[in-house]
Amino acid sequence: MAKVFDATEVAKHNTPESCWVILYGKVYDVTDFLSEHPGGSRIILKLAGKDATEEYDPIHPPGILEENLKPEAMLGTVNPDTLPKVQAEPEASSDEKEGPPPMESLLNMDDIEQVATKNVSKKAWAYYYSASDDKVTKHFNTEVYRSILLRPRVFVDCTRCDLDTTLLGHNLGMPIYVSPAAMARLGHPAGEAGIAEACRSFGAMQIISNNASMTPEQIVKDAGPGQVFGWQIYVQIDRKKSEAMLARINKIKEIKFIVLTLDAPVPGKREDDERGNVVGASAPVPSATKAAESAEDETSRINQSAGGVGKQLFAGTDPSLTWKETLPWLATRTDLPIILKGLQTHEDAYIASLHTPQVKGIILSNHGGRALDTAPPAVHTLMEIRKFCPEVFDKLEVWVDGGIRRGTDVVKALCLGAKAVGIGRPALWGLGAGGVDGVKRTLQILADESKTCMRLLGVETVNQLGPQHINTRLLEQQIYDGPSGLESLRNIFRAKL
Amino acid sequence: MAKVFDATEVAKHNTPESCWVILYGKVYDVTDFLSEHPGGSRIILKLAGKDATEEYDPIHPPGILEENLKPEAMLGTVNPDTLPKVQAEPEASSDEKEGPPPMESLLNMDDIEQVATKNVSKKAWAYYYSASDDKVTKHFNTEVYRSILLRPRVFVDCTRCDLDTTLLGHNLGMPIYVSPAAMARLGHPAGEAGIAEACRSFGAMQIISNNASMTPEQIVKDAGPGQVFGWQIYVQIDRKKSEAMLARINKIKEIKFIVLTLDAPVPGKREDDERGNVVGASAPVPSATKAAESAEDETSRINQSAGGVGKQLFAGTDPSLTWKETLPWLATRTDLPIILKGLQTHEDAYIASLHTPQVKGIILSNHGGRALDTAPPAVHTLMEIRKFCPEVFDKLEVWVDGGIRRGTDVVKALCLGAKAVGIGRPALWGLGAGGVDGVKRTLQILADESKTCMRLLGVETVNQLGPQHINTRLLEQQIYDGPSGLESLRNIFRAKL
Amino acid sequence: MAKVFDATEVAKHNTPESCWVILYGKVYDVTDFLSEHPGGSRIILKLAGKDATEEYDPIHPPGILEENLKPEAMLGTVNPDTLPKVQAEPEASSDEKEGPPPMESLLNMDDIEQVATKNVSKKAWAYYYSASDDKVTKHFNTEVYRSILLRPRVFVDCTRCDLDTTLLGHNLGMPIYVSPAAMARLGHPAGEAGIAEACRSFGAMQIISNNASMTPEQIVKDAGPGQVFGWQIYVQIDRKKSEAMLARINKIKEIKFIVLTLDAPVPGKREDDERGNVVGASAPVPSATKAAESAEDETSRINQSAGGVGKQLFAGTDPSLTWKETLPWLATRTDLPIILKGLQTHEDAYIASLHTPQVKGIILSNHGGRALDTAPPAVHTLMEIRKFCPEVFDKLEVWVDGGIRRGTDVVKALCLGAKAVGIGRPALWGLGAGGVDGVKRTLQILADESKTCMRLLGVETVNQLGPQHINTRLLEQQIYDGPSGLESLRNIFRAKL
Amino acid sequence: MAKVFDATEVAKHNTPESCWVILYGKVYDVTDFLSEHPGGSRIILKLAGKDATEEYDPIHPPGILEENLKPEAMLGTVNPDTLPKVQAEPEASSDEKEGPPPMESLLNMDDIEQVATKNVSKKAWAYYYSASDDKVTKHFNTEVYRSILLRPRVFVDCTRCDLDTTLLGHNLGMPIYVSPAAMARLGHPAGEAGIAEACRSFGAMQIISNNASMTPEQIVKDAGPGQVFGWQIYVQIDRKKSEAMLARINKIKEIKFIVLTLDAPVPGKREDDERGNVVGASAPVPSATKAAESAEDETSRINQSAGGVGKQLFAGTDPSLTWKETLPWLATRTDLPIILKGLQTHEDAYIASLHTPQVKGIILSNHGGRALDTAPPAVHTLMEIRKFCPEVFDKLEVWVDGGIRRGTDVVKALCLGAKAVGIGRPALWGLGAGGVDGVKRTLQILADESKTCMRLLGVETVNQLGPQHINTRLLEQQIYDGPSGLESLRNIFRAKL
Repeated sequence: MAKVFDATEVAKHNTPESCWVILYGKVYDVTDFLSEHPGGSRIILKLAGKDATEEYDPIHPPGILEENLKPEAMLGTVNPDTLPKVQAEPEASSDEKEGPPPMESLLNMDDIEQVATKNVSKKAWAYYYSASDDKVTKHFNTEVYRSILLRPRVFVDCTRCDLDTTLLGHNLGMPIYVSPAAMARLGHPAGEAGIAEACRSFGAMQIISNNASMTPEQIVKDAGPGQVFGWQIYVQIDRKKSEAMLARINKIKEIKFIVLTLDAPVPGKREDDERGNVVGASAPVPSATKAAESAEDETSRINQSAGGVGKQLFAGTDPSLTWKETLPWLATRTDLPIILKGLQTHEDAYIASLHTPQVKGIILSNHGGRALDTAPPAVHTLMEIRKFCPEVFDKLEVWVDGGIRRGTDVVKALCLGAKAVGIGRPALWGLGAGGVDGVKRTLQILADESKTCMRLLGVETVNQLGPQHINTRLLEQQIYDGPSGLESLRNIFRAKL
Repeated sequence: MAKVFDATEVAKHNTPESCWVILYGKVYDVTDFLSEHPGGSRIILKLAGKDATEEYDPIHPPGILEENLKPEAMLGTVNPDTLPKVQAEPEASSDEKEGPPPMESLLNMDDIEQVATKNVSKKAWAYYYSASDDKVTKHFNTEVYRSILLRPRVFVDCTRCDLDTTLLGHNLGMPIYVSPAAMARLGHPAGEAGIAEACRSFGAMQIISNNASMTPEQIVKDAGPGQVFGWQIYVQIDRKKSEAMLARINKIKEIKFIVLTLDAPVPGKREDDERGNVVGASAPVPSATKAAESAEDETSRINQSAGGVGKQLFAGTDPSLTWKETLPWLATRTDLPIILKGLQTHEDAYIASLHTPQVKGIILSNHGGRALDTAPPAVHTLMEIRKFCPEVFDKLEVWVDGGIRRGTDVVKALCLGAKAVGIGRPALWGLGAGGVDGVKRTLQILADESKTCMRLLGVETVNQLGPQHINTRLLEQQIYDGPSGLESLRNIFRAKL
Repeated sequence: MAKVFDATEVAKHNTPESCWVILYGKVYDVTDFLSEHPGGSRIILKLAGKDATEEYDPIHPPGILEENLKPEAMLGTVNPDTLPKVQAEPEASSDEKEGPPPMESLLNMDDIEQVATKNVSKKAWAYYYSASDDKVTKHFNTEVYRSILLRPRVFVDCTRCDLDTTLLGHNLGMPIYVSPAAMARLGHPAGEAGIAEACRSFGAMQIISNNASMTPEQIVKDAGPGQVFGWQIYVQIDRKKSEAMLARINKIKEIKFIVLTLDAPVPGKREDDERGNVVGASAPVPSATKAAESAEDETSRINQSAGGVGKQLFAGTDPSLTWKETLPWLATRTDLPIILKGLQTHEDAYIASLHTPQVKGIILSNHGGRALDTAPPAVHTLMEIRKFCPEVFDKLEVWVDGGIRRGTDVVKALCLGAKAVGIGRPALWGLGAGGVDGVKRTLQILADESKTCMRLLGVETVNQLGPQHINTRLLEQQIYDGPSGLESLRNIFRAKL
Repeated sequence: MAKVFDATEVAKHNTPESCWVILYGKVYDVTDFLSEHPGGSRIILKLAGKDATEEYDPIHPPGILEENLKPEAMLGTVNPDTLPKVQAEPEASSDEKEGPPPMESLLNMDDIEQVATKNVSKKAWAYYYSASDDKVTKHFNTEVYRSILLRPRVFVDCTRCDLDTTLLGHNLGMPIYVSPAAMARLGHPAGEAGIAEACRSFGAMQIISNNASMTPEQIVKDAGPGQVFGWQIYVQIDRKKSEAMLARINKIKEIKFIVLTLDAPVPGKREDDERGNVVGASAPVPSATKAAESAEDETSRINQSAGGVGKQLFAGTDPSLTWKETLPWLATRTDLPIILKGLQTHEDAYIASLHTPQVKGIILSNHGGRALDTAPPAVHTLMEIRKFCPEVFDKLEVWVDGGIRRGTDVVKALCLGAKAVGIGRPALWGLGAGGVDGVKRTLQILADESKTCMRLLGVETVNQLGPQHINTRLLEQQIYDGPSGLESLRNIFRAKL
């Protein structure tokens, strides 16, 4: 029988030399694991000697604890009577009693975000809502769609209209997919598997985040026939870890492609997230933390402040990826098609197009405005490619994400040449608002709005959409017109090939 | 003598198998009529077993009940003492007591809208006010006029100035007409006939909505000599219904032309309207409704939410109209000139110009921002036509609507080539603010403002107005400059003709 | 000894057949004068039978009563005890007790307007503040200056800097003059003579309004040596009245030129003014008013509502002026140079330049945004002239007004070619804020700011200012680029000359 | 032993004929010094007969009193019991008790400004915060950076990234320096020496203001090895004073260059500063002040109002500097490199480039929006130079200041060709928020943000940054396009050389 500890006993082990934590009522000695924690030792030391369950649970896949610790690290259980009583947040109580409104009463993405904002914890809200610096890019992502006008054609039979499309050769029910957004269980216990369940109903594709709060196997478990998933990789400094993970992914037949995220080699500065996470920081930081810090590498010290959820997730991520080294390495580790995510210039889109056939597609993305503030929206990059190197569209599938809030936004992106449109926050807000039903409502609204839009444009299928359906005149005046790196790139690659 | 029912007895008949409703104190069995209701069965089933008068009355022409039901459907009367007591909305009471202010104290369209907003029911407000999605187009419709500057010429005798004009060969007192706005009796019992009475005083033209809350005959009943009406058709899936209606219209001599609306083959998403209509939705939906839903066709299920007045009106409308099929059909059913409403691109204006002589005019319109959000304002389309195919102005009369709030707006549209300018909401707000006098006040203000504007431009008659009187420089930078469908259209039609 | 009336006796004479009013304690029979009143009979009939002093006094030059009425019209005096007691406006009392702050504590035009807004009556505020329709032009007048950037040159000796300039050959202390703003005594008893006193201190020019609340003789009475005035004429329908007035003006040696206002042949729609004037309108309008109305000419009935101070002032103004008839007539009635005010297009500026030598200058003005809303600011017209017919600057002096709130605004207008800059509201707000001292403060601030601006631009005298000192790039993109009437004008005038 | 005075005795000496003040408990007779005071006699006379310590201390370098007054001017001490009791500002007390938050909780410049705003006196806030007129330029300085988009390049190894740079041949830790901002001790007793201490930690350069509240010697006292300072000169009308000061500066080895400020030959109109300084002005101004005023020169009377801290600092500054006279004079007085500050046009940048080798660099600056309102931001001038005379970048170092609030702003300026970026207010707010630690936090945040930005752009060192990393399309449409003075300048200088 496992030994039973008093909380005060556990509390003594709060140093790098002896670090215990309580998780799900059990006591673990994580001293040896400190240096291996992908999120860095600092975050564990903050919780050293305490019950870390509430912090740990929503951001770690179930079962991963057992995977990573040796059996003997489990020292015993804690006597629950000796733990301090947790106070419920009183302000939320009245709302919680009410429960969320019926999903069908939510008419648009704003409604859903509003309900989710009330439902989820402050920490979850801060992590989902946050974006870099002044959120200029986050807001521009949405506003830019408002500045594109539609050109409805009339007297066209619009009885039939469907959103069916094909991505990487797979048949899908809509050109809208769920972006690899991390930490779904922060918002709702259904987590990423709940998103998968909703996607199944619509034939929608889902990309699983490298930082999902469930394992890929858990997420795809109840996949429908023909349901399509991708898996997003953040390449680790410790390349072995990534290779192990890729080997595991290669075995999951529902996962059809690998997404390599490039737009966030280092974390952006998400101030809401950092502030949202300060709750725990009000407790005095044990001196252990400070000692440990000095041992961490420079990247993790880029900012001195506590750092939000976003920053913790970056620990261990390799900032040294390159076209020359990383792509060939990745190609040797998987036969799945590779999608490059986070391209923001026509030059990089062009380079990607030179890396077929390994690279099958690119995602124009600024990471939801979470990486570099005042980076351009995907729509800008679409227009840059159209202007400088339209041949890219012939060689690769071009997907976009960021700022989508209306079906008209989806349609506009498609008119500009995107094959698919990703939603990140809307899916998470949907989950936060109503679990699986909330994500379904999100997808339903966007699908309905997209079809209404296509009908009113006089269009039956997504591949009929083109630049003749939109007026981008205002936007054209904002598209990059400076020195293009294209010519020198063309020469370099011509010389190479 | 008719049988007298208790309300509780009626209440039992609330299923698709036996559906009774109370209207004007009488009890009707509408079970057989359910499938024929142009607004779909769902809306009736919501009121099944209840007194539906308040919902029914303002949106149905008087007498239409008798026209559509067999005599035996009238089962008897309801014992009024057994009906639940209706509570007056308390908030409105003080305002109601006061009554609306004298119409002459209202100085502009905003004043009138403000008074009407207080006067009319929430449902009416929501139906009139609402527009698609984020109302980007609705607001742009008005703002776009503010971005056009006027160029007043001075030292010109402006003693005389009049608004007289000719539309389709008819002499009219002003180039402002009332657009085919539905459901006038929602706002005021005077309804569309009240609008007609106001128009008579000004020699203004009126287009009768397909969804008017009075019959065309009722509306034109007190027409003055030379008063001009048009009639708007939404072609029904059941083409016979439309043909019967056209036959009836052909007999009304005051109706001089047919307006075929093209900009709304499927309903836009008017969220205010949907929310405004949710009042009744708070009552538990009888299971009958759900059963019935599954039988409805796809179009009516485009959005899962309750749907506002606007969506109900669309039921039965045919989304499959085409240049090739519908125009010839319509031409065989009426000899009246045909006006096509809802054109939003120069390409469609051009095609229309190839369909003379049946087509005598077009109305550039985005349906008051109620169809597709981020569609362009009529002013954009005017400028597109000027830029790509100005010959259209020689072949057709071009009318516009949407966003008119000032006499200067009217004048600017005329300067850009419009022959007439339609007002929808302003007429309805006028009606809501003060009945017939409110509509007169609306027309008076716009007429006065238009004349003041013309005088200050140094212009005596509307046909003197031209592009030299306005500065559209800012706007020109926003007009579509992408691929024009015009060349291929010219080739197609050249080949044909 | 004059007869003494009870107020109740006077009150009976409130019809067009017998119309008495009380003014300064005396009772007048104005029945015969009704039809001659330049402001129309309606406004008098509203006050028929009552004490009209408060309404009459601030808008009529002292002594004009005696000039216009026969001696026998003065029937006697009123017994003051029989008059109703006037209630002080309670809200204003605390402010009034305090009195206005010291003028030197007011740092800019906004400060001055704010103090004046508190000081003056609601009616005065409404008259001064109001502009047409939505006040788009009024606000644009000011904002347009913000969109012009300055280009300061450095390392230039800026010890000396003065604002001296020459207008029409007269030496003046600054290029800022007071525009012909009407009804100064509404704001402060010092009236237009107070403005003249302030101008004297600065060597600033003043244009006397046709609708001044003091006679020209009263205004120029204490003029300093070399002080320069202009006189503004609104040509009356009854041309004899204008001729008599011109004859009188010709005799006043301080008046050096005549300003003919062209931008307001009919009144704009100033809603604030109309609402501000409704105070009296809450009293029941005697039926007499209605009867009288039907006899008024069409122009004065353009709007049905009560009409503000602005509209009353327009009564009798001739809307039929033309280049061909009016200019020659005016030239025969005065030898003074003629300045044309209210030009808003390059075409009209060009025509004016063909009418030298009678016409010596033009004022680009939109009447402070009070005539036609969405008319262009004077800065636009300056730029239009520079673009289409810069030769105008060589033939005429070009002055501008409208929207000036900062010394930088003054300097920018001069850089664009204006010889002088007029201020209307700022002078009236100054008067309202602190009488003569308030106007001085206004002129002092603008002079100081203008000099600071010139010094920081590296400029010593106003005639050194040019387009190289400003960046109008943003604005250039808004300047009219449509069909210019210039070529046809050039042909017409070439043919003529 | 020094004589002890009662405050009432001192109070009698409040005229220009006998002017005493109390400073640090001592009584001084400053009658003879009145005419020599660089800030003018007026400001002293306001405090004549009173304890001036609170006003005097934070804006004068310690020890300067003894330097400027003869020993016999110290008459004795004041009996402290006879001085009026000073009341603490009650509102600030609660905040003061709390003390400022930990610096690491401040995440950006706005946070720091907010805390500083609470911490510092109203007078200090007003002096730091204020800018000219309507603060259009101050706000534009920051907004202009938001309108430049970044162009992140991906798949680039961004492990290494540093901010090291070289300015005027000196190695520095970052391209961010502290601008010559005056009166640091107003905000915090650590003053300019505190800023120096913070700069030392980061290898950041500091320019010492001519109006520093500490002597240059005091400021550089604890400089680290290799720490670099510049010294800013405002040339005095009394050139001897400036020569003496330069001689003194030449001896301070840490000072490596002289900055000659050109953008403020006369003070701008900083209304917040003027209002902020009115606190003392509420006391009755002794008649002495008025008498003294009439003797002052015109420049100091440019505005009649009290004038803020900013205006006082200008007293004695020579507005007559010229390329021809001043530069050669300065070159004879120092061998240090000369940097010209305040250039705002490409023409002046070009002229500066013709004055090598004395002139080694220029600072594009509008004085933080404190000189001429609606002057262009430094970014405009950078782009003007790029457009008209890019050769300037080869001949001189171009630095910029104004509006920097984010690391992305720093990076954007560098991309446009700036070698270094100055911060003025951010350093002062940092000092006000937390003394030395506050300035360190300011520099830390900007350094961290700059590095994150560079990494996400795919750039390792500052000299890799170029126009290919930014999209300035929107901005290009605002850059001056009028007549360039360049051609005539080229001719003039060609002729000369």
